[in-house]
Amino acid sequence: MSEAVSRPTLEAVAARAGVSRATASRVVNGGDGVREPLVERVRRAVEELGYVPNQAARSLVTKRHDAVAVVIAEPETRIFTDPFFALQLRGISKELTAQDNQLVLLLTEGRDDHARVARYLAGGHVDGALVFSLHLDDPLPGLIEGAGVPTVFGGRPGWSGGSKSAVYVDCDNRGGAEDAVRHLVGLGRTRIAHITGPLDQTSAADRLQGYRDVMGETDPRLVVASDFTPSGGERAMGELLDRCPDVDAVFAANDLTALGALRVLRERGRRVPEDVAVIGFDDVLPVAEQTEPALTTVRQDIEEMGRLMARLLLSTLNRGEPATGAPTGVVLPTTLIRRATA
Amino acid sequence: MSEAVSRPTLEAVAARAGVSRATASRVVNGGDGVREPLVERVRRAVEELGYVPNQAARSLVTKRHDAVAVVIAEPETRIFTDPFFALQLRGISKELTAQDNQLVLLLTEGRDDHARVARYLAGGHVDGALVFSLHLDDPLPGLIEGAGVPTVFGGRPGWSGGSKSAVYVDCDNRGGAEDAVRHLVGLGRTRIAHITGPLDQTSAADRLQGYRDVMGETDPRLVVASDFTPSGGERAMGELLDRCPDVDAVFAANDLTALGALRVLRERGRRVPEDVAVIGFDDVLPVAEQTEPALTTVRQDIEEMGRLMARLLLSTLNRGEPATGAPTGVVLPTTLIRRATA
Repeated sequence: MSEAVSRPTLEAVAARAGVSRATASRVVNGGDGVREPLVERVRRAVEELGYVPNQAARSLVTKRHDAVAVVIAEPETRIFTDPFFALQLRGISKELTAQDNQLVLLLTEGRDDHARVARYLAGGHVDGALVFSLHLDDPLPGLIEGAGVPTVFGGRPGWSGGSKSAVYVDCDNRGGAEDAVRHLVGLGRTRIAHITGPLDQTSAADRLQGYRDVMGETDPRLVVASDFTPSGGERAMGELLDRCPDVDAVFAANDLTALGALRVLRERGRRVPEDVAVIGFDDVLPVAEQTEPALTTVRQDIEEMGRLMARLLLSTLNRGEPATGAPTGVVLPTTLIRRATA
Repeated sequence: MSEAVSRPTLEAVAARAGVSRATASRVVNGGDGVREPLVERVRRAVEELGYVPNQAARSLVTKRHDAVAVVIAEPETRIFTDPFFALQLRGISKELTAQDNQLVLLLTEGRDDHARVARYLAGGHVDGALVFSLHLDDPLPGLIEGAGVPTVFGGRPGWSGGSKSAVYVDCDNRGGAEDAVRHLVGLGRTRIAHITGPLDQTSAADRLQGYRDVMGETDPRLVVASDFTPSGGERAMGELLDRCPDVDAVFAANDLTALGALRVLRERGRRVPEDVAVIGFDDVLPVAEQTEPALTTVRQDIEEMGRLMARLLLSTLNRGEPATGAPTGVVLPTTLIRRATA
């Protein structure tokens, strides 16, 4: 069908520039060995005709598409409401653009669409993939492995060994959580609760583990499961106040959860931090600064993690080796940022 | 490079299912004429091996990738901060997913990346493109035409006739603006200002035209140029109050601009709507409902516009005709939504 719309050919460029097709091709494909005045004439002809190089033909030579897919294992509605994803994409976009690679974001409505995503990855449209927000029971990692494209994961993948291996970038979720809970202990709090993220994600499971590392055996009613969203944080905080009215601190699994928890504490007339201290995780701005009071939280450099994922993948592609082998993780440190809530 | 990672072949599927390669191929490609027990065996083998059909090979037969590119002519930072884009993408995503097409969002850092986007479009990775937020001096429309893929535009493209033609979906920007300004006149306001959007976009130019249709010749100081962002709305409102302290109404080119204007009016001690009435455009939620006071605005059904763009493109692809010819626009009506600011 693309034939139906006429498109200037390389032959037309060569004719207009008054050079051979081979010379025009060398210039268009960035090759050397063409004299500057000829290069200039070809460039002008390309501009005047609005010539776009045929990527498919070029790929046959270079074996590269200069394009990288990004797959976020969440429905598109969440991608556009959780600032975490925008930050990670910002880092990825900056790095890919700096190396003149096209960012190809594959959006889905949900898990049912993951087989289609894998088909696209297998279809020879991208050189590699950056994949994040995986869930334990999601077939996506297996599908992606089947697609056979080099992949870097954001967050430690949760599946276990076997032939499977993965390159990933993560932050120190467990250590960051330990810092947060230790800080609450240091404030003299004794009834410290945790509102978890979705426990089918390693980030949430690791933060819960960090809480347990410091707290040891606690009243099980102090741990409430939630889902990384503000409304989930509201529900969990309500439940927590009903079950344990004497709660005096909350470590929320991320900032959006903390945002919801703060709303409910305010509605129920609890003063923060006097009655209940609150700590989040992520330091997504402007959310964390604009909560009332401003949120104490565990900072991870989300944009930098995105950049690192892209850099790892591109260097693998440039070396020409698959991004597999022994599981390799890059784990970035976290920092406790003290504001007003704890 | 994808060879480096082993991937189950169709032959392996056929062997595991105990059928011929041709039979396995027919099942995988959705063809008929295979007995149900054999279909079942092939499906099980596909699942057990984690086989992913080779889309490139399949495309050779169907000439389709079942993938549609979305290009938004804005840097990715704006795409993730202006809810307009999330809403339009939601409509597009729902429609493409319902027809089992992959949404391929091509992100950029800015205009310098548009040639790379055009190369990707020309590279045989998608069946068509949905393009929105065009600017008048942007080379993107020409580049996209050169790429030769069927395209539907969001918003009336601003370039003039010639051989160029375009299928587009838009809302009645001019009529909606007229309604807003007429409403302000009906409230007895006489010093009605307009804060424009970026006038290199037809949506902003058409809304300014609607303002002029009703107001005729006005004090030129009552029209201030801005850029569809909250900070732009703040700057413009500040300028407006300095130039025309007697302003008694503002028609803002979109809701985010109105949001910024409301902040400055509050800071400067002007009561809304008593001293200054304010109307926005778009009705992006929750923004428009959560301003203080809640925003009166001109509603356009942004999600439906996204759906319609996708539907128009897919029906063109299904008919096998290029989405070009005489310029064809679908223009949806707007509705004035009265809340508290006017």
